[in-house]
Amino acid sequence: MKLIRVAIWGFGAMGSGIGKMIAAKQGIQVSGVCDKWDKLVGREMYDYLDIDRKGQPEVFITADPAEIVDRDKTDIVILATDSFVKAQFDKIMFCLQRSVPVISTAEEMAWPWAQNKDLADKIDAEAKKRGVAVLGTGINPGFVLDYLILAASGTCEDVKSIKGARINDLAPFGNAVMVEQGVGISLEEFEKRIEADTLAGHVGFPESIEMMARGMGVKLTEIEQSREAIVTNIDRTSPHGFAGKGSLAGIRQQAYARNEKGDVFYHLDHPQQICPEAEGVSTGDYITIHADGYNMNLSIVPETPGGIGTISMVVNMIPQVLGAKAGLRTMLDLPVPRAILGDYSEQIDLDPGQYAERKKGDYVVVQRVVLTAQQRAPQVPEDTAQQPLIALFKGFLEDESAVPGDEVNVVTMSGRKDQAVLTARDPSAQHTYGRYVDELMQVHRQVCDLLYGGEEA
Amino acid sequence: MKLIRVAIWGFGAMGSGIGKMIAAKQGIQVSGVCDKWDKLVGREMYDYLDIDRKGQPEVFITADPAEIVDRDKTDIVILATDSFVKAQFDKIMFCLQRSVPVISTAEEMAWPWAQNKDLADKIDAEAKKRGVAVLGTGINPGFVLDYLILAASGTCEDVKSIKGARINDLAPFGNAVMVEQGVGISLEEFEKRIEADTLAGHVGFPESIEMMARGMGVKLTEIEQSREAIVTNIDRTSPHGFAGKGSLAGIRQQAYARNEKGDVFYHLDHPQQICPEAEGVSTGDYITIHADGYNMNLSIVPETPGGIGTISMVVNMIPQVLGAKAGLRTMLDLPVPRAILGDYSEQIDLDPGQYAERKKGDYVVVQRVVLTAQQRAPQVPEDTAQQPLIALFKGFLEDESAVPGDEVNVVTMSGRKDQAVLTARDPSAQHTYGRYVDELMQVHRQVCDLLYGGEEA
Repeated sequence: MKLIRVAIWGFGAMGSGIGKMIAAKQGIQVSGVCDKWDKLVGREMYDYLDIDRKGQPEVFITADPAEIVDRDKTDIVILATDSFVKAQFDKIMFCLQRSVPVISTAEEMAWPWAQNKDLADKIDAEAKKRGVAVLGTGINPGFVLDYLILAASGTCEDVKSIKGARINDLAPFGNAVMVEQGVGISLEEFEKRIEADTLAGHVGFPESIEMMARGMGVKLTEIEQSREAIVTNIDRTSPHGFAGKGSLAGIRQQAYARNEKGDVFYHLDHPQQICPEAEGVSTGDYITIHADGYNMNLSIVPETPGGIGTISMVVNMIPQVLGAKAGLRTMLDLPVPRAILGDYSEQIDLDPGQYAERKKGDYVVVQRVVLTAQQRAPQVPEDTAQQPLIALFKGFLEDESAVPGDEVNVVTMSGRKDQAVLTARDPSAQHTYGRYVDELMQVHRQVCDLLYGGEEA
Repeated sequence: MKLIRVAIWGFGAMGSGIGKMIAAKQGIQVSGVCDKWDKLVGREMYDYLDIDRKGQPEVFITADPAEIVDRDKTDIVILATDSFVKAQFDKIMFCLQRSVPVISTAEEMAWPWAQNKDLADKIDAEAKKRGVAVLGTGINPGFVLDYLILAASGTCEDVKSIKGARINDLAPFGNAVMVEQGVGISLEEFEKRIEADTLAGHVGFPESIEMMARGMGVKLTEIEQSREAIVTNIDRTSPHGFAGKGSLAGIRQQAYARNEKGDVFYHLDHPQQICPEAEGVSTGDYITIHADGYNMNLSIVPETPGGIGTISMVVNMIPQVLGAKAGLRTMLDLPVPRAILGDYSEQIDLDPGQYAERKKGDYVVVQRVVLTAQQRAPQVPEDTAQQPLIALFKGFLEDESAVPGDEVNVVTMSGRKDQAVLTARDPSAQHTYGRYVDELMQVHRQVCDLLYGGEEA
C-alpha cells in the first residue's frame, strides 16, 4: 500500500493538531507545512510539536505554499487557515491548479453554495478540470448539526421538523475567545457590539441547513438567524473569563429554516457560554427528529469536543477524499467518517471483493518485478529510483484457485505460459477518452485557422 | 428527472411496509411485487394495502419473480425474504443475471464476507460483471450498532474500545415473537432450547463487527457471542406475552470482539424482553466510545423503532445504490442515509456543481427535441413512443452566461450557429472500453482456433 503524503497549510491550533494526529498514525505522513507566522517559519515540525519523529523525514515549516503544494511531494493539502470561502478561495485554487486535492477546515466550505455560489462553482469546475476532489468538513458544520442529523433521519419514513442543539462550555478557552464571544460584558455593550458587528459567532448555520435540505429534498423559503445574550443569574468564573451576575455568560445563536408551508422545519440552537452547569444547563449535543407519530431523541453528553472533533474529522476523511470523484464534494456524498486505527491507505479503496479468489480459466492481470528499486540504473531520477520496475500482463489462470498476491501460472492470449504474481487489477481496459481540455480545443481552432484560413478541412 | 421503479420480492411485514412507504413518496414507484403466499398472489397491491393508488399503475402480486425482475420494467429489486445469505443467494443472483440492482433486508447481507465469504465473492463478481450494485441494510445491522458507531467515531483521534447496546421492548410484538424469543419460559426450558438451538436471536453481530473493524482498520482475533436468560423479578404482562416472576422476560445476546492485544475492542449488547421498564430498565440505543482521555456517550431514547427503521433505511438508500459503483456495496462505502421528503430521483446524482452557470465561449452540450412523444411514428415500440426523440450536440456558448435549461445560442466546431437548450452534460467523451466480457474472449479464442488451427494470425 502507498503512503499518503499530507501537506498542512495553516499551522495554528487546528493545523498543528492535525500534524500531531497524523504523526501518530500509520500509512500517512506529513509532507510539508506552510505558515506565514515568523515564529514558525524555519522550525522543524516534529521538534516544534515536541513529538517523536520515529524515522519520518524532517518537515521544515515554510512561508511559501509553492514549496509544499506540489503533486510530486504531496497527495493532499489540508487548508486550516480561515472560516470563510472568500478568504480561502485563492488558496484552494492555488492547490487545484497544481492538481492537488484539498480538505478545508473553513466552516463555509462545508456547503459553499449556501452563501458563495459563484466561488463554489469556480472551485468545482477547477477541481473537475484537474481531476481531483475538494471537501470542507469539521465538527460543526461537518458532523453534529448536519451529518449526524441526516444519518439519524435515515431511519425515518417521514419527518415533520428537526431541532438540533449544541450546548458547550467556553471555560477551557483562552482570553481571545472570551473577548470575541462577549463573556462578562453588559447587556448594553452586547447591543452596541451586535450593531457594530464585532462579536464572533458560530459560522456555518446556513451551510449546515442547506446541506441537509439538499440531501432530504426539502424546499426552504427562508433561513433566519438570531443572536441573543445569555445573562447569568450568578457569578461564573473560568480560567480566562469572568461573568458577574447580570452580565453576559455568553451568546445564544439560533437559526430557523422555514419550508414552503411557512413552518419551521430546521431549528438549530447553539448557545456558547462559560460554565453552563453552574445554572443547571448540561452541555451536550441534542437532536430531536419529529417523525411521523414519534420523536427520535439523540444526545451526546457531554458534547462532542470541538477541537479534537474538527481535527479528527479532517484527518479521518482523507481516504474518502482521495477516493472521491473529482469536483467539490461534501459530507453528503462521501462514505461515512470513522476513526482509523490501522493503515490509512487501506481505507481508500474498500472494495472487499477485489481480493476474492480467482479460479482456473479466469482472465487475470499478473505482475513481475523486472528490476527492484536497488537494481535501478544510476542515471534515473531519484523518485523513479525508489520504485521497482514492474511488468504487468494478462493471462488465463492455470492454477485451480488463487488470491491476489499468490505466485501463479498463466497462459496468455497468444499461448505463452508464464509464472508471475496475481494482482487484484481488473482485466478491463481502464483508460478513458480523457477530460475535455479547453486549451487543446483552442489550439485545434488556431491550427485550423492557420492552415485553412478559418475553414475546417 | 426519471421515475425510479422498484420491484419488491417478499411481501411480509417488511416488504409490505416498503410498498406503503414508496407509495407515499415522490419520484419513486412500485413496479411489481412477488410473493409465493397464495393469499397474496393475484391481489392488487394498493387495494391489499388499503391505500390510495393516486393514479399510479396497478400492481398485481405474482408468485413468479421473472415477471417483476426485468430491466425493462424495474430499476431495482428490494429483497425482503430472509435473514441469511445462503437463503437469499439464488434470488440475488437471479436479479443480477438480469442486470437489476438489489437491496436486501437480510441481516447477514450487511457484511456477507463475515460468515459467507465464498457467496459474497460470487455476488460481487456477478454484480461487477453486470455493472450494477447490491447492498444489504436495515436498522441493525445497517445503522444502530455499526453505521452510527462508525460515524460517531469519526470525531475521535484514537479509540480504545467501543460498547454498543440496543435495549428494546418486545411488548408490541405478536405471539410468534413471544414463542421464538422464549418469553415466559422457565430457566430449565431455556437451557434445553439453547442446546436444541430452537430460540431465535438477533442475526448480525459478526456482520456489524466485521464491517466496523474493516472501516476502522482494527485487526480482530476473535468474536465471541453469548446468550443468557433475562429472569424477571416481578410478573410482566404484554398484549401477547406473560412472564411470571422467576421465568424469562426475554434473552440477552452479547458479542465480544478482541483485538490482537487480547482486549475486548467491540462489545455489543442486545437484550430483548417484554416490559423492561417494569424493572427500571430504559429502552434505548446506547453507544459509548472510549476515546483517548474521554468517553463519547451517544444515546437514542427510546430506541430507534425496528420495523420502521429497517423499512426506512432500505427505501432511503435506493438513490445511493442506483448511483453506486458496480459490485457488492456496504454501508461503509455509500453516502449517508437520510429521510427523503422530496423527489427520490433527485438524490441519485447530488453534484450541485453540474448546474453551475456557463460563460460565453465555454464548450457545452445542448439539446433539441426533434420529435415529442406525441409526434413519434405509430410503428415504434410502446416504450420508445413514450420518449421524445432528442438531438444532442456540442458548441461554444454565444450568450454571456446561461444555466442548464436555458435556451442558448452556440457556434459548433464547424462554425454552424444554432439555438438549443443548454444541458448539464459534460462535453468529454463519456464512453469507455467497456467491462471485460468472458464470453467474448471465449468466442475470440474459438474463432482463432477455427481459422488458424489454434495459432493466432
